[in-house]
Amino acid sequence: MPPFDVPEGDPFGPHNLPYGVFSIPGSREPSNRTVGVRLGDHVLDAGAAAHALGSPYASLLAQPTLNPLLAAGRTAWSDVRRALTAWVTVPSHREALEPFFHPLSSVTLHLPFEVADYVDFYASENHARNVGQIFRPDAADSLTPNWKHLPIGYHGRSGTVVVSGTDVVRPSGQRKAPADAAPVFGPSVRLDIEAEVGFVVGVPSELGAPVALGDFREHVFGLCLLNDWSARDIQAWEYVPLGPFLGKSFATSVSAWITPLDALEEARVAPPERTHELLPYLDDTKDAQDGPGGYDLRISVAVNGHVVSEPPFSTMYWTAAQQLAHMTVNGASLRTGDLYGSGTVSGPAERERGSLLELTWNGRDPLELPDGKRTFLEDGDVVTLSAWAPGPDGVRVGLGEVTGRVVGRDA
Amino acid sequence: MPPFDVPEGDPFGPHNLPYGVFSIPGSREPSNRTVGVRLGDHVLDAGAAAHALGSPYASLLAQPTLNPLLAAGRTAWSDVRRALTAWVTVPSHREALEPFFHPLSSVTLHLPFEVADYVDFYASENHARNVGQIFRPDAADSLTPNWKHLPIGYHGRSGTVVVSGTDVVRPSGQRKAPADAAPVFGPSVRLDIEAEVGFVVGVPSELGAPVALGDFREHVFGLCLLNDWSARDIQAWEYVPLGPFLGKSFATSVSAWITPLDALEEARVAPPERTHELLPYLDDTKDAQDGPGGYDLRISVAVNGHVVSEPPFSTMYWTAAQQLAHMTVNGASLRTGDLYGSGTVSGPAERERGSLLELTWNGRDPLELPDGKRTFLEDGDVVTLSAWAPGPDGVRVGLGEVTGRVVGRDA
Repeated sequence: MPPFDVPEGDPFGPHNLPYGVFSIPGSREPSNRTVGVRLGDHVLDAGAAAHALGSPYASLLAQPTLNPLLAAGRTAWSDVRRALTAWVTVPSHREALEPFFHPLSSVTLHLPFEVADYVDFYASENHARNVGQIFRPDAADSLTPNWKHLPIGYHGRSGTVVVSGTDVVRPSGQRKAPADAAPVFGPSVRLDIEAEVGFVVGVPSELGAPVALGDFREHVFGLCLLNDWSARDIQAWEYVPLGPFLGKSFATSVSAWITPLDALEEARVAPPERTHELLPYLDDTKDAQDGPGGYDLRISVAVNGHVVSEPPFSTMYWTAAQQLAHMTVNGASLRTGDLYGSGTVSGPAERERGSLLELTWNGRDPLELPDGKRTFLEDGDVVTLSAWAPGPDGVRVGLGEVTGRVVGRDA
Repeated sequence: MPPFDVPEGDPFGPHNLPYGVFSIPGSREPSNRTVGVRLGDHVLDAGAAAHALGSPYASLLAQPTLNPLLAAGRTAWSDVRRALTAWVTVPSHREALEPFFHPLSSVTLHLPFEVADYVDFYASENHARNVGQIFRPDAADSLTPNWKHLPIGYHGRSGTVVVSGTDVVRPSGQRKAPADAAPVFGPSVRLDIEAEVGFVVGVPSELGAPVALGDFREHVFGLCLLNDWSARDIQAWEYVPLGPFLGKSFATSVSAWITPLDALEEARVAPPERTHELLPYLDDTKDAQDGPGGYDLRISVAVNGHVVSEPPFSTMYWTAAQQLAHMTVNGASLRTGDLYGSGTVSGPAERERGSLLELTWNGRDPLELPDGKRTFLEDGDVVTLSAWAPGPDGVRVGLGEVTGRVVGRDA
């Protein structure tokens, strides 16, 4: 099967097949974006392949975004995945499709879907406790009273969700140290990351009709890595009483590849034991016949190529299914392309924390990197999140990385 | 000029000409939505009119949403308005266009634009002080320390912005009284409104490039009335530390008519005197050659047809231009269709408060309506916001009303 092989055990082998949107640089068309499926270090032009094979899915795949596929629903998702699996594994198909594979290094990857609403949650107990201890050291409980009763979340800015590889301009804004008489304006001096997992909604829901816990897989297509860039100094001054705004809204990076939930069946794990009785719409302890709601994703956070943390997604207290049920329990509707972030993923160990805020304990304990100490990010720093999950037969399922370089506003 | 006349002094006369999107019920096309312009109690099919007159603006107007017109920019906005003014005032044009006028009562009005991001501010000092006194009675200052330094805002859910006339399903959710040991679940028992003005962004901006105070009119096309329905019990339990979420995300109603800023030149007024020195990007005291940043909009809030409040928009501390400058100062980009709410409009007098929370002082002082007492909204209640502004030669400029009926989830 020339011209390329996928090594045995490759985390982007035929068991994975994440979806993205790519274009060929320099091609004559004004926009030649189309859906691609990753196999090893190549991308398959899925629409062209479907056309060539006379597949009925060509109209879902020959599209400049994933939104039509997302909207098509679970049966279509399974059917398309089954077809793609055959195309890349049956030798005759694979051979016929060689013209439609492009080396990853030869294509440009784009934001894979049009983001409708973007919501960000706060679902790691370790993260919430760390933040509580840092900012409210005198509080009796490092968690707010509501934390164990509902997955806390808020809406973010969907217009500034960018694809992996996009430079992040250091935001300017107001900040005020407690001792200052008035706020000052300037570039953030406490620019941070948050290592998260993003969930992508495919099938919409009707206004006024909540989505039950058990309907999660009917609505959510897949997941990606997500970096919720955060300017801690801007955030600290602005966020009381209505929550984060400019401290977050300048950029949210997502990976170029959306991993379908169907590729992550072997990664499903039970979430941590619930310490509080949950209201019925959130109670996932009684009705688990569809399998557990957690995912065993092993995330890695690197600054300038140096791994600083390995947050374990399996430790998240609230699951994506609970977040979806909560987000809609008031009757709020879903749209194709809705994106929701898990919240910062932090494990119990120091080297498992998903933000520099926690890793450096708000700057008190700088990280030692090969190129010097870091409290928060400096201009030129490149942050890369990567992850894998257990797959079939011990093979890993790779998630698309999300990377971004910090640039000064005048860079 | 048969078949209809616009009475002298009609607030929707030829000096106003707000834009909306309408369709003719029962027409054969699957979707026949198109841009309409209101004149008196009629709506002009603007795209059909433009076609009939051979106008170059037909392609901007024969559209199912306002977005193409919004994206076209200020020069196009002025040109289109000038053309429309001629069409509805020059007798020969007006006569030629009679076939394209439809009685308002014969059409269906739709959400006039596709909402990109939705942001809500908190810009009334009276409102913020009332809320502070109600919820933090022991605080030394009823305003949070940041309030006078920046326009506080947060992102809301754009997917649940609905057009005037849409029923609002009473949301269910968690609430917890201070004395309760654990939260309970059920329909909100403290459903409220917030009388606001919404601003509609037309021209996008680039990621990383703030929009200056003076560029407000290059980006913002117009405004509408907005009701930010709020479930106070859900909100109270969820909002610490990340702000409002399900307490607001179930519905936000906007009027069917977008009033262009160009129709409101006579309504511009100076905002209240600034009590704190502002950082340069927000300082509108030094550079007012383009005219003042406030708008003299006289809002009226009616419950079941009974006026309960008349909030004066001229009292808003932060202007829409300041809100736009703040929203983008961190480099966040704008998209065509971005919507931002002013925040609840409350004047200094009791009968000028823009929420039931304030009007009833959190339920302590019920309102006496002809059909009984009200603290918060009951199923079946209809809330209607209307407004007018001073126009040319003493004629009022009417804003499109925003109305909605509360229905129980099982209704």
